[in-house]
Amino acid sequence: MNAVDPSLEAAPIADWRSYPISADLAGLSASSDSLDITWSDARVSPFHHQWLRDNCACSQCVYSVTREQLLEVVDVAAELSPQRTRIDEQGHLLIDWQDGHRSRFHPGWLRAHAYDEASRAERRAQRAQPRLWGAELAEQLPQFDYQTLLEDDSALLQWLLAVRDLGLTQVVAVPTTSGALQQLARRISFIRESNFGVLFDVQSKADADSNAYTAFNLPLHTDLPTRELQPGLQFLHCLVNDALGGESIFVDGFAIAAALHQEAPELFHVLCTTPVEFRNKSRTSDYRCLAPIIALDAQGLVSEVRMANFLRGPFDAPAERMPALYRAYRRFIAITREPRFRVQRRLQAGQLWCFDNRRTLHARSEFDPTSGARHFQGCYVDRDELLSRIHVLQR
Amino acid sequence: MNAVDPSLEAAPIADWRSYPISADLAGLSASSDSLDITWSDARVSPFHHQWLRDNCACSQCVYSVTREQLLEVVDVAAELSPQRTRIDEQGHLLIDWQDGHRSRFHPGWLRAHAYDEASRAERRAQRAQPRLWGAELAEQLPQFDYQTLLEDDSALLQWLLAVRDLGLTQVVAVPTTSGALQQLARRISFIRESNFGVLFDVQSKADADSNAYTAFNLPLHTDLPTRELQPGLQFLHCLVNDALGGESIFVDGFAIAAALHQEAPELFHVLCTTPVEFRNKSRTSDYRCLAPIIALDAQGLVSEVRMANFLRGPFDAPAERMPALYRAYRRFIAITREPRFRVQRRLQAGQLWCFDNRRTLHARSEFDPTSGARHFQGCYVDRDELLSRIHVLQR
Repeated sequence: MNAVDPSLEAAPIADWRSYPISADLAGLSASSDSLDITWSDARVSPFHHQWLRDNCACSQCVYSVTREQLLEVVDVAAELSPQRTRIDEQGHLLIDWQDGHRSRFHPGWLRAHAYDEASRAERRAQRAQPRLWGAELAEQLPQFDYQTLLEDDSALLQWLLAVRDLGLTQVVAVPTTSGALQQLARRISFIRESNFGVLFDVQSKADADSNAYTAFNLPLHTDLPTRELQPGLQFLHCLVNDALGGESIFVDGFAIAAALHQEAPELFHVLCTTPVEFRNKSRTSDYRCLAPIIALDAQGLVSEVRMANFLRGPFDAPAERMPALYRAYRRFIAITREPRFRVQRRLQAGQLWCFDNRRTLHARSEFDPTSGARHFQGCYVDRDELLSRIHVLQR
Repeated sequence: MNAVDPSLEAAPIADWRSYPISADLAGLSASSDSLDITWSDARVSPFHHQWLRDNCACSQCVYSVTREQLLEVVDVAAELSPQRTRIDEQGHLLIDWQDGHRSRFHPGWLRAHAYDEASRAERRAQRAQPRLWGAELAEQLPQFDYQTLLEDDSALLQWLLAVRDLGLTQVVAVPTTSGALQQLARRISFIRESNFGVLFDVQSKADADSNAYTAFNLPLHTDLPTRELQPGLQFLHCLVNDALGGESIFVDGFAIAAALHQEAPELFHVLCTTPVEFRNKSRTSDYRCLAPIIALDAQGLVSEVRMANFLRGPFDAPAERMPALYRAYRRFIAITREPRFRVQRRLQAGQLWCFDNRRTLHARSEFDPTSGARHFQGCYVDRDELLSRIHVLQR
């Protein structure tokens, strides 16, 4: 027999990931609007009829080239039910619908998308968690070699996981030529442009359109808090650093937020709930963004810090909340100044720093531009690009 | 007398806007932690001492070249109070602080940033509001001439205001040459790159990495709902449209949301509060974003719609909420199909459509790629860039 029995093939899947089978389908039981699957490890997962029909990945419902859905669920009856359900020889779920359509589901895929409470809790627990750090990170800073990252995908993945989970990494042996950081950034994806260009040169300029381009002390900040989406990753490449002064300081904004939360939950709450305007204004641009300094995700975990004192507009809040807002803001800044949180380094030519700009605050002390040259180049890559690249490397 | 008395000059302002004086300072009254200003129109505005000291725009506190703050408020005493306050000969507020610092405030700037309840309500009322539309917009579509937009800043401003408030505009007499849309987009700012490039060509391709690049019907959607920040503006430039089929449809997502809210507030609420995952997956990328289909701003107004059925992942919500989620999703899609909301047009060569991609859903009916050529080019510009450009043009 030459023809392959189609029932022996795995059911199609509407993405490019693989779904190992961690438990088998053991039993099916029907209710009025859903099918309850009992797994070989005794977990029970309800799947609503609408959900199952919606997620049919057959070649009529999903275009196999793009793996994108062609079916719109609104085009099937709201009350559509299965005519017949069974577990087939391959251990897949087979459904014959009342309207004659047939769907077949891969057990690994079904388990990965089950929405019973245990399955959802399991997925939440598996999500990557940030590893908080303080001054001690200076002694155990994750370091990566430039050329290796360009050539080796597994080294690349290790670096990107460190960026994602720690938010501060150093790359060494980078050529001190203009644009060398671009080659590395492009290992992740395209670069996010801003009004400062695709690459920006951090040098003291007479006609500065940002305090970044002066020789002043620049207090701890995130870049571009004036944009609705702050850049996810910042690359900072040191080409020359011969001037006196200009030390770099990094702090973990998530660790600062956690410290504030522990010390004064009411002040933490103020920074999570009070929108603050950040303004980046010049002769040719006028960006404004109104958002809280600490952002929480749907689970209530800190997902972002937005902070640059030199770009902050006047606080605009109900008068009775103003004193608490100043107390919270002062306290947050004061904590960032505590030595236990600060990693202070003099960046050297040939070093590149890549950090999570929505988490890791960076600062520079004042320098003397007459004492020697100082030239850094920077660029941004968004968090979406980092995570997509990690997902593809992990497939 | 040649020397100008500095007290006769306007107080410095920490941005590049101008602040007309709509009311004069009429009286000052001190309380323990704030100064109450009575204006010539009898409004009373409290200003806390910390707020006033924080917003001093003198050349020690703000760098005059960048208009960015040098002072960090944490560096002055939390209890700092004025030694003496008065309204000077120019009608400005003059404060001598206990620590010897002197601040001077422009009355127009102070009024524009006052945070008493009446001033805050006035600013809320002045905010631009979207103008909702339905099928009737087809007869009164805002049209703009390509060359005029390239040359004339006031025409440019009118166009950008229409994009902001209506979310759908047409530009005519565009050269049918590749890249012509880029020149227009650059009148606003740089273009937002994506994995599909800086410019993308919408043509049917055998190795499509998105259903957009097939000849299939493409239901109403926003582009890139798989990114944390959906692109703000979408440009779609028709170079050739000789194929059979391929009509374009636009609907106002804010109007759809309003209709759902009126008809079934509980279903509207489900779409505002249930995060849905959108997935853009291919061999080289795997973007995923979890966010509600309808997003509300801090005031509870609809600020964004996120929707593309062909990029939606399986719903992941507690089982007891699944039936309501399907009811809400089906109803939202069903409303987008009602003729009263749809603007249907066959795009012509030389036309360019610019719309708010976070509000205006667009669709294309199936076309026959063997019947003639069809070639569109598109690009994105973010909402931040639109608003900044409007602010600068309005200065």
